[in-house]
Amino acid sequence: MSPKITTELLKQLRQVMKNPKFVQEPVQAYIVPSGDAHQSEYIAPCDCRRAFISGFDGSAGTAIVTEQHAAMWTDGRYFLQAAHQMDSNWTLMKMGLKDTPTQEDWLVSVLPEGSKVGVDPFIIPADQWKRMSKALRSAGHELVPVKENLIGTIWSGCPQRPCKPLITLDLSYTGVSWRDKIVALRSKMAERKVMWFVVTALDEVAWLFNLRGSDVEYNPVFFAYAVIGMNTIRLFIDGDRMRDPAVREHLQLDSTLEPEFQIQVMPYGSILSELQAVGAGLSPKEKVWLSDKASYALTEAIPKAYRYLTPYTPICIAKAVKNAAETEGMRRAHIKDAVALCELFNWLEKEVPKGTVTEIIAADKAEEFRSQQKDFVELSFATISSTGPNGAIIHYKPVPETNRTLSVNEIYLLDSGAQYKDGTTDVTRTMHFGTPSAYEKECFTYVLKGHIAVSAAIFPNGTKGHLLDSFARSALWDCGLDYLHGTGHGVGSFLNVHEGPCGISYKTFADEPLEAGMIVSDEPGYYEDGSFGIRIENVVLVIPAETKYNFKNRGSLTFEPLTLVPIQTKMIDVNLLTEKERNWVNEYHQKCREVVGAELERQGRHEALRWLLQETEPLARVQ
Amino acid sequence: MSPKITTELLKQLRQVMKNPKFVQEPVQAYIVPSGDAHQSEYIAPCDCRRAFISGFDGSAGTAIVTEQHAAMWTDGRYFLQAAHQMDSNWTLMKMGLKDTPTQEDWLVSVLPEGSKVGVDPFIIPADQWKRMSKALRSAGHELVPVKENLIGTIWSGCPQRPCKPLITLDLSYTGVSWRDKIVALRSKMAERKVMWFVVTALDEVAWLFNLRGSDVEYNPVFFAYAVIGMNTIRLFIDGDRMRDPAVREHLQLDSTLEPEFQIQVMPYGSILSELQAVGAGLSPKEKVWLSDKASYALTEAIPKAYRYLTPYTPICIAKAVKNAAETEGMRRAHIKDAVALCELFNWLEKEVPKGTVTEIIAADKAEEFRSQQKDFVELSFATISSTGPNGAIIHYKPVPETNRTLSVNEIYLLDSGAQYKDGTTDVTRTMHFGTPSAYEKECFTYVLKGHIAVSAAIFPNGTKGHLLDSFARSALWDCGLDYLHGTGHGVGSFLNVHEGPCGISYKTFADEPLEAGMIVSDEPGYYEDGSFGIRIENVVLVIPAETKYNFKNRGSLTFEPLTLVPIQTKMIDVNLLTEKERNWVNEYHQKCREVVGAELERQGRHEALRWLLQETEPLARVQ
Repeated sequence: MSPKITTELLKQLRQVMKNPKFVQEPVQAYIVPSGDAHQSEYIAPCDCRRAFISGFDGSAGTAIVTEQHAAMWTDGRYFLQAAHQMDSNWTLMKMGLKDTPTQEDWLVSVLPEGSKVGVDPFIIPADQWKRMSKALRSAGHELVPVKENLIGTIWSGCPQRPCKPLITLDLSYTGVSWRDKIVALRSKMAERKVMWFVVTALDEVAWLFNLRGSDVEYNPVFFAYAVIGMNTIRLFIDGDRMRDPAVREHLQLDSTLEPEFQIQVMPYGSILSELQAVGAGLSPKEKVWLSDKASYALTEAIPKAYRYLTPYTPICIAKAVKNAAETEGMRRAHIKDAVALCELFNWLEKEVPKGTVTEIIAADKAEEFRSQQKDFVELSFATISSTGPNGAIIHYKPVPETNRTLSVNEIYLLDSGAQYKDGTTDVTRTMHFGTPSAYEKECFTYVLKGHIAVSAAIFPNGTKGHLLDSFARSALWDCGLDYLHGTGHGVGSFLNVHEGPCGISYKTFADEPLEAGMIVSDEPGYYEDGSFGIRIENVVLVIPAETKYNFKNRGSLTFEPLTLVPIQTKMIDVNLLTEKERNWVNEYHQKCREVVGAELERQGRHEALRWLLQETEPLARVQ
Repeated sequence: MSPKITTELLKQLRQVMKNPKFVQEPVQAYIVPSGDAHQSEYIAPCDCRRAFISGFDGSAGTAIVTEQHAAMWTDGRYFLQAAHQMDSNWTLMKMGLKDTPTQEDWLVSVLPEGSKVGVDPFIIPADQWKRMSKALRSAGHELVPVKENLIGTIWSGCPQRPCKPLITLDLSYTGVSWRDKIVALRSKMAERKVMWFVVTALDEVAWLFNLRGSDVEYNPVFFAYAVIGMNTIRLFIDGDRMRDPAVREHLQLDSTLEPEFQIQVMPYGSILSELQAVGAGLSPKEKVWLSDKASYALTEAIPKAYRYLTPYTPICIAKAVKNAAETEGMRRAHIKDAVALCELFNWLEKEVPKGTVTEIIAADKAEEFRSQQKDFVELSFATISSTGPNGAIIHYKPVPETNRTLSVNEIYLLDSGAQYKDGTTDVTRTMHFGTPSAYEKECFTYVLKGHIAVSAAIFPNGTKGHLLDSFARSALWDCGLDYLHGTGHGVGSFLNVHEGPCGISYKTFADEPLEAGMIVSDEPGYYEDGSFGIRIENVVLVIPAETKYNFKNRGSLTFEPLTLVPIQTKMIDVNLLTEKERNWVNEYHQKCREVVGAELERQGRHEALRWLLQETEPLARVQ
């Protein structure tokens, strides 16, 4: 990786920062955040403005350019990568280190008195604007919205915003029609006494209308906003997509509907002016509901007194609780995904000893097997295919410069998943194709104990996921080991592989309580820098549990694994398992045999079936 | 309990709410919070204004009186008590129930337009003022500070503010001189670039100057403030207490010290004017450090731009980490406390079958045995002595109306503790003096398993206590049982029995990371309404742990029980314990035998020693 030369680009940016064509008054600093106008985790190429100006293309980072300086804030995952990708014009601000200033403090320390700091109001979330603006104001500066994105003005080869065809999902996939989702949303709005709801997150728009797209890699979403009133539905979306007869039929655009279910289709770019019109027409006590992560631009369109902001929207919360159709779809998707992985691991067992399989080849092979399955759409994230020391890099993605050959001497970690029309998968298995060391087995077994502790946990209805995080660490802690990431994230149903509002993490305290139907990952790990990485990840469904006393009828919950891929028994030190844990492994493997075995049989994949049967031999009791 | 008749009092209060002698303009509502000017948990009789006006004397509650209404907000612990103690003038607002309005919402719903709401600015913490003021302003009302406390104006028999003699603590108790504490505080101030620190919490003043008092029952504190500058020390305190030669000597008031260690003693009531003078004399960039829980009055004395507010003060954090002298003192105090409880339980075993021991008699007897121990000062909280159904009332305190006789048929729960000059204790034991049922034993054993899971937990240095809370619940959860309180609180060293900033709770996310030297309680429980309560509580010290891999030198922590009182083995269903848990109980009891046994021997308490030996017989392995 050689750094991007940015001298000329920065010169151009500094010129437009003073150009009255773009700014009312010159700005002394310009902030370039990572996100898009929907606060997406994964963004389209046209939104990679921070990568364009700096060269640094990690998933998290904020660039700030002043007349003299250019600085990049990013976190520990990306210190090395950012240092490699940026030239000497840039100062790397290592977030999380004690001496690293915050963006606000740094700005205050370098700006001349009474400076203006510009930012694209569509890209900055309202809550961040508030914090930044307050800090700057108290130091005598001002945060100002710059309507035209200044990176856009200097980015000549900027790709077009994607505008790909839509997929319609019928009731067999979604379980609930978009009409019924609108009805439920309006009832939540009535409960909170709000008249309007603004849908800004892309996965929320997709979920609400039972549509999917492919505008963003790995995330089956499309660029759109929606504004739902008590009697109106407005969908802001571009392109020919609304000419597709299947979409018109799905949304009943040509039918005579009750007025409150007629969808008005409007251009994507008209959201701001339409919302301003809504804002201007509000009577007292008419509130407008927005996520507090919505962009500053849209939030400002509604006068302050009329805003109703919440960290999680009612759509976010409804979307997290999967209905029977979605749950069944997720089950089917995970069975197909397991078939593909049985094929892959069977293939790897044979090929790895030959010394010809690299991390990239293995990742491609995984995609090939997945793509053979029914309703496969695309991968759900960039495959983490990592062997030996690369396994210790938690967000590793193999590239030619780092590509390592799998061998019988190193641990191999594969974290991968796919989008199927019936569900989203995300699974990590850690394998050894030779003979693991006692230490590797020891660490693997602690991670497995943590995985089981979460998966088999029983807890009262209403428990927040973060209260389960320590269960995943207890066995590691007992020996002085730990891992520096959360234990689980919510998973969408043929939607984003990371979704709120639930999760299992020591960091997340704003998570919503777990309830039956929610789907999260369970993925403890252990990483030995420079040597190996271990992670065991299943996607699990929250289900009611049977307990002796049932929390005085408050109700009991536990998890059911949806992922059904063998956990390599060769890596387990059975002496370290309790009887309960051993039984858990054996019952899990028995289920893999039955469910995935039947599907392998059905698909005529006999060699992979043999592999499955061999990998799911019960663990013997230790004497 | 008959309710207090408040008709006349409310009439008087409503008159002074309009009396220009006390209010600049009439106030349409007056708020009476629970606290004192130091945001103390336990308050002196002169500060029990809310109890005076309403009759309700629980530890938590806020009264609001308008021209037409009088309403009391309190939480689930006190619904019954408040309903009994208040007459029909009052509306009980049950906090935590879905339909109960917040104070702000209720005020907005009952007040005439443009009302003024008064409150004593010394009693309301700054953060509460901010929230309440904002809500009222946005509805067109105004929160106004009323300098003279209006309850004070109508409370003719109001007791005097206590002003009792002070106790000086020498280095053998405190480990660090007050001079060195000031030096350490100033170094923290320099780190944060603040010039002044205002000490508002009573236990922080007491800790800083190595002084104790007895102005508030159960808490060895005295009414005072302090303002620490980089070169000055001001102590605001009343009475003859500074004439005491021991105190003068301790504070070196008559010595020629370097000016920065000379303590200026000023009247308690002059804090506001002195702080206003400090505020008026600040140069740019000179900040003043206050707790964000300090009173609105004191916070307002410092212009906003000069305030540096934090949830925990540097004194709060330093005080939580006990040094070697404090730790040794706590150990001694807990041994003496165990001696007293061995005497008590031995006595109860003999007396309970006679049917003559009531909850109050048992509590008094516990105090009697404790008071025989060296350096005993007072109890550390009101003894919870509860049998049968009373045990299920978590904050129960026996009074003649509820006083129940202990019997061989009911579980007895005793939660009690004392202040000794060398340390503070807090211990709960649950005993059966007959034959417990299988269900009672089952529940007790789950609680014990939770207690052990926390006490024996190993975790990396820097872990926050709330991450350990679920360990205490896991065994209960597995059977569908739970308890609705946190698992532990910080404990002071001959100071408040509840202190921040650490704790173990599912509720507390603002807790500071645990570090070696911190002391917390470990007290899971189980409560069966109308039948019994179970709680097992030890005070435990955070100590370094030895682990195989030591978290890559981050360091390992665990707990050492300071409380050394037998856990009744009769209540344990040994079949439900793992081998590790059984060993924990046996090792714990072995330590009780050795340490407390030696002290019982030394004190010649042979009968209690016999009881201890019998109660600490090792649990046998189950076949």
